[in-house]
Amino acid sequence: MIYTGGTLEDPDMAKTAHAIARFLPDQVHSVWDSKSAGALLSDIVPGSMCRAPVVSALDQGLDEFDLVIGFAPIGGDLTESQRADLAAAMRPGIRLVNGLHEPLDLPGTLNLRHLHATSRPIAQGMEFDSFRVLTVGTSHAMGKMTATVAVHEEMSRRSVDVAWVATGQTGMILAGEGRVLDSIPVDFVPGHIEQMLSEVDREGRIVLVEGQGSIFHPSYSGLTASLFHTVAPQAFVLCARIGQDHHLGFRQRIPSVQQALEGYAALGAALGVKSSCVAVSLDSSRSTPERYYEEKARLSQATGLVVVDPVYEGSAELIADAILARMGEGV
Amino acid sequence: MIYTGGTLEDPDMAKTAHAIARFLPDQVHSVWDSKSAGALLSDIVPGSMCRAPVVSALDQGLDEFDLVIGFAPIGGDLTESQRADLAAAMRPGIRLVNGLHEPLDLPGTLNLRHLHATSRPIAQGMEFDSFRVLTVGTSHAMGKMTATVAVHEEMSRRSVDVAWVATGQTGMILAGEGRVLDSIPVDFVPGHIEQMLSEVDREGRIVLVEGQGSIFHPSYSGLTASLFHTVAPQAFVLCARIGQDHHLGFRQRIPSVQQALEGYAALGAALGVKSSCVAVSLDSSRSTPERYYEEKARLSQATGLVVVDPVYEGSAELIADAILARMGEGV
Repeated sequence: MIYTGGTLEDPDMAKTAHAIARFLPDQVHSVWDSKSAGALLSDIVPGSMCRAPVVSALDQGLDEFDLVIGFAPIGGDLTESQRADLAAAMRPGIRLVNGLHEPLDLPGTLNLRHLHATSRPIAQGMEFDSFRVLTVGTSHAMGKMTATVAVHEEMSRRSVDVAWVATGQTGMILAGEGRVLDSIPVDFVPGHIEQMLSEVDREGRIVLVEGQGSIFHPSYSGLTASLFHTVAPQAFVLCARIGQDHHLGFRQRIPSVQQALEGYAALGAALGVKSSCVAVSLDSSRSTPERYYEEKARLSQATGLVVVDPVYEGSAELIADAILARMGEGV
Repeated sequence: MIYTGGTLEDPDMAKTAHAIARFLPDQVHSVWDSKSAGALLSDIVPGSMCRAPVVSALDQGLDEFDLVIGFAPIGGDLTESQRADLAAAMRPGIRLVNGLHEPLDLPGTLNLRHLHATSRPIAQGMEFDSFRVLTVGTSHAMGKMTATVAVHEEMSRRSVDVAWVATGQTGMILAGEGRVLDSIPVDFVPGHIEQMLSEVDREGRIVLVEGQGSIFHPSYSGLTASLFHTVAPQAFVLCARIGQDHHLGFRQRIPSVQQALEGYAALGAALGVKSSCVAVSLDSSRSTPERYYEEKARLSQATGLVVVDPVYEGSAELIADAILARMGEGV
């Protein structure tokens, strides 16, 4: 069961719930959101096959289950009423899966952000053998996790030797492992990334790393820089959204796709990482189909790259092709 | 009293003790380090006027005092014997000032790294009115804190309107305020920087910000990127050391001063920060005077910048001049 506390219809806020609806449709029993009660999850989440009902209270008929907090407020705090909902809900048999910054001390809670926050590995500047692809964004919440998982699904379908590394709370829920990097003290972030990469690194394998934040974001550039430096991806996928001008909740403008490509090239130069963009993953959920196809054509032309919305077009086929082609070139 | 647990003669390890000896000579009563007992602090720390004795045990004659842990092992852990020393030492009247990653739970301990680790401010991308100067390095432990404090002392002597912002444990001990940024979860680092800058920001004032890490360091690039982004310094001072080829404890090479200038220029381009180098602060403590003067002349010629070792030459006069000149140009 997913708890979204009135936020389900806001895809930025309820992004964990939307991702689960999209990528783990068979594992959702119901969604607890009194504001949207009565609908099916697939009515609300574009591209989801999940026909689980949205209900207005905790399901009393279930025995042992995970109650997953499916939204992420900026700053990480619950409202009083959300907090009261959860406190009233807890009973033996429920595991509350909490990916928020704020640790909850309700019995039976798994605080995802606090699983790794006290371990202090120092990175060694390790080199890896796999072909590593990082998703980066023009801003945060631009579909980096979605593109990563969609490409992984597509490559797995083709039996490519591929793994992916989850770096945020939603990714951890989808992958069943990973670490919430944004909660880790800044000096130890590279050490945690190296530990995760070491576990999946193998020559000839593709490792897709879920990116975080954006080098252009006033708050989240440090984590993006650490990921770029430590992963040292041979290729990256740039994620952007049509029709969003400003960083969500901030007054700073988001760069254009072309400016962002220049920015990440400069970042690579600063960090001594040779990496180039292999595809643009476009989120068209705020746009019309006409605008999407126009923007896609314009950007393909301007950048010479594959440009596609893997959710709207229902597949990450072209991005997977582009990555395999780049890997074949032995970059 | 400063506790250095056998590390005093290693300036990289005991850098907190060395900085206190250099900048707060009147405030040191004695140093507890059985390996170097019998010497005076000024015998061991180059450029220090501090004639406090190095002793082999806790001073029993003192009543109320701070016992400052004056060294910083990589990774942040004490050895068993250091831990035993401190546990045996504690008694009422002693405040143990601990800047290590590891919080100590001895009674009377002030754990500097944990004062701000649980507050979660989100940066807003604030703009500031002061003229901001950040120290950056070719690697970590290249004298960024030393250059910052030395320039601040020099400018204060001239009655310039200047403030400095401490971002590490030693800086906090010297300044009496500040935050240990490297222990803060990566997403909140910019918010903490904005809070500190807000407190000292004023048009016409120079604000010197103590840098951390290095964009070239495998572990510490994320924090450097966050500082560069959030401080958005109009000018920066590049700190480098003669005669050190590799990042301390790492196998990766340190870039040359010219490569580092290119790297920070690329970082500025990636982050949208217009900033340029105003001076090179050279640490010559591992070098001969001949080598220092040769390197200084070569780098001045090659970069067109002021190049000086403020410790060896006993003053940060030229760096202060360069900053004031740049500010006067209204960059």
